[in-house]
Amino acid sequence: MSRSRLIGFFALQKNNTEVVIHVLIVMKALLLLGCPEVPVQTGLALYIGNTLKTQGFEVICAGTPSAVNLMRVADPKKAYIESYMNIDKCIDQIAEGIFDVDLTFGFIHKDSGLQYLATIAALSRSTPIAVVFGREAEPLSKEVGESLDGVYVIWAKAIHNPLPLKKKLDKIGEWAALERDQG
Amino acid sequence: MSRSRLIGFFALQKNNTEVVIHVLIVMKALLLLGCPEVPVQTGLALYIGNTLKTQGFEVICAGTPSAVNLMRVADPKKAYIESYMNIDKCIDQIAEGIFDVDLTFGFIHKDSGLQYLATIAALSRSTPIAVVFGREAEPLSKEVGESLDGVYVIWAKAIHNPLPLKKKLDKIGEWAALERDQG
Repeated sequence: MSRSRLIGFFALQKNNTEVVIHVLIVMKALLLLGCPEVPVQTGLALYIGNTLKTQGFEVICAGTPSAVNLMRVADPKKAYIESYMNIDKCIDQIAEGIFDVDLTFGFIHKDSGLQYLATIAALSRSTPIAVVFGREAEPLSKEVGESLDGVYVIWAKAIHNPLPLKKKLDKIGEWAALERDQG
Repeated sequence: MSRSRLIGFFALQKNNTEVVIHVLIVMKALLLLGCPEVPVQTGLALYIGNTLKTQGFEVICAGTPSAVNLMRVADPKKAYIESYMNIDKCIDQIAEGIFDVDLTFGFIHKDSGLQYLATIAALSRSTPIAVVFGREAEPLSKEVGESLDGVYVIWAKAIHNPLPLKKKLDKIGEWAALERDQG
């Protein structure tokens, strides 16, 4: 099952009667990964990728070269994530309007992670979701909430143990409910 | 295809003729994980798990609670690793002779990792293989080579980027060739 947005619009036929045309667009989720200094990052990204894929999203992972390399090594059969992009190329393409997504997950354990999500949030129509972890998770999560409009923040002081964050993620259920732009 | 060891032995039939009985035993590989402080550990363990599984091994991962939790979160569909054990329980079971494997991969980025592999190597009939990474990889790899008889050492100073170690692992090809006990 693919998670899709249904867009209905009217069209005028030759005989001047109207018909409703429905277009289905598969919803896309973007995982935004900065440098993988904190051990839980790769595991959480694979976990969220799997949940989104199960819910019918097309999942794209954009990251720094080492973040992407680590994801590819950890998921050699592409069981969880199928598409990868360089993070700078991803930002360029969203800025140029040739690529966009419905949900953007920023993985944040330091300021650069917040900057990446803030950049995408300013350019994209997607809902920003901040997954904040690491030693500075608490102050960082507040900074994220204060600096990004409409952001959904999930945080835990997870460094090696992903379970506190996994529990919070599991409570969300249907990610599509967080989408801000229903077409 | 399962990677198996073929054991042949003679048995005496009632009419005093001999028959050869062949027993196939699926080869087992153990991944031994200490605390996941270095980001590449989980990704490399999933990568090696996948390679071994593809080569027909049954793969078991034994680790500290946070190492096992991180592996389970990173591989939610068990696409790469199917069985997990607590590392202390694993050592106990090998010591009691109720469990053993053919290859043991110790993931080593500090002394405790070396201690785990040395303990298993002393108790088990398996070939010890040390996968050494992190900032101290070079001196640690020497220490491993000097302190463990018959150990096969693969090392790289990998912290965030798994590619140097992945390249070395890929060169090995068939892991079964490293097995020390052919039955």
